Amino acid sequence: MNYYGNPITRLIEELGSLPGIGGKSAQRLAFYLIHQPKERVEQLAEAILEARSQVQYCSCCCNLTDEDPCPICSDPRRDHTTIMVVEDPRDMAAYEKTKEYHGLYHVLHGAINPMLGVGPEELKIKELLHRLSENNTVQEVILATNPNVEGEATAMYISRLIKPTGIRVTRIANGVPVGGDLEYIDEVTLSRALEGRREL
Amino acid sequence: MNYYGNPITRLIEELGSLPGIGGKSAQRLAFYLIHQPKERVEQLAEAILEARSQVQYCSCCCNLTDEDPCPICSDPRRDHTTIMVVEDPRDMAAYEKTKEYHGLYHVLHGAINPMLGVGPEELKIKELLHRLSENNTVQEVILATNPNVEGEATAMYISRLIKPTGIRVTRIANGVPVGGDLEYIDEVTLSRALEGRREL
Repeated sequence: MNYYGNPITRLIEELGSLPGIGGKSAQRLAFYLIHQPKERVEQLAEAILEARSQVQYCSCCCNLTDEDPCPICSDPRRDHTTIMVVEDPRDMAAYEKTKEYHGLYHVLHGAINPMLGVGPEELKIKELLHRLSENNTVQEVILATNPNVEGEATAMYISRLIKPTGIRVTRIANGVPVGGDLEYIDEVTLSRALEGRREL
Repeated sequence: MNYYGNPITRLIEELGSLPGIGGKSAQRLAFYLIHQPKERVEQLAEAILEARSQVQYCSCCCNLTDEDPCPICSDPRRDHTTIMVVEDPRDMAAYEKTKEYHGLYHVLHGAINPMLGVGPEELKIKELLHRLSENNTVQEVILATNPNVEGEATAMYISRLIKPTGIRVTRIANGVPVGGDLEYIDEVTLSRALEGRREL
């Protein structure tokens, strides 16, 4: 299958091994890159290497960051009494975009998933408990793991560990998504939305 | 939007500027890369740089290659009397996969497209004519540009330039694709398939 010579074939293989990039996309990307100005291509390669080498876990919240502690943990204007527990840095970013949450985060880097062999030890749960035991300012832990089986199991697991400490543990609400059409929403969500109904 | 620190944000931006990679995919790729082993990431960066720096046009067929002339042009087992003209190296690869064509290629790197400002001068047509005038071994030029308006126009244009030299000029056949369902094939293709019918 080496129709293009080694460097191109190698680049196509490397790109094709990335998640979500199939053979055709890899080919298209490779040809795109070959036709780009040299500086542009060097910038991309540099960005890849720099991100891989400079990024580390924040020693406090386990978010990915290039400064430790991360900008959120070290921001005195944020509410240090509340910690939102999320599975992934992208979930953190999603909540940051709402501009409605001003507390801190804790990133688990996954959810309990026995099918994939991910147990509580693989997640940053120890780090969360350590963090809670180290300082007494935290008053509430909001469990914002995903609303699926793994996320629910992880939330249940963590809530059982934290409750004995007396810290308030909450879970984000289930319900109908804003802008959604009731017709297309599954029954479980509809039931949860009914259960969670609020006085107007 | 800088929720992750500069190196990650920069990587996401760089990846997101590639064709066919939107914001969400760029984010997913960036996080994937950050979690890969260091060697794996260095290999990718190196492949990108190497492909960009080592790849050039074959001085004979204008295909992309890391050796000049390219392996196809310098292969004595191939039929040097036939040249297939294609728009793109990927079209060349598509014909190579058939294993049915054993002649040489000529890569135009595009098709005549007045809407995008691509005239004959932008394509490797001069190089093709030069190649034909330089050696007398070529007996047939097969025009395998795409079967769309631009490809047809390009084929017509080239055929008019070559015909006076006495070299045979052919065009790949239009017809119903193998495995297709007649019901879903457009009328123009059906008419062309009828016109081009062959004795069995």
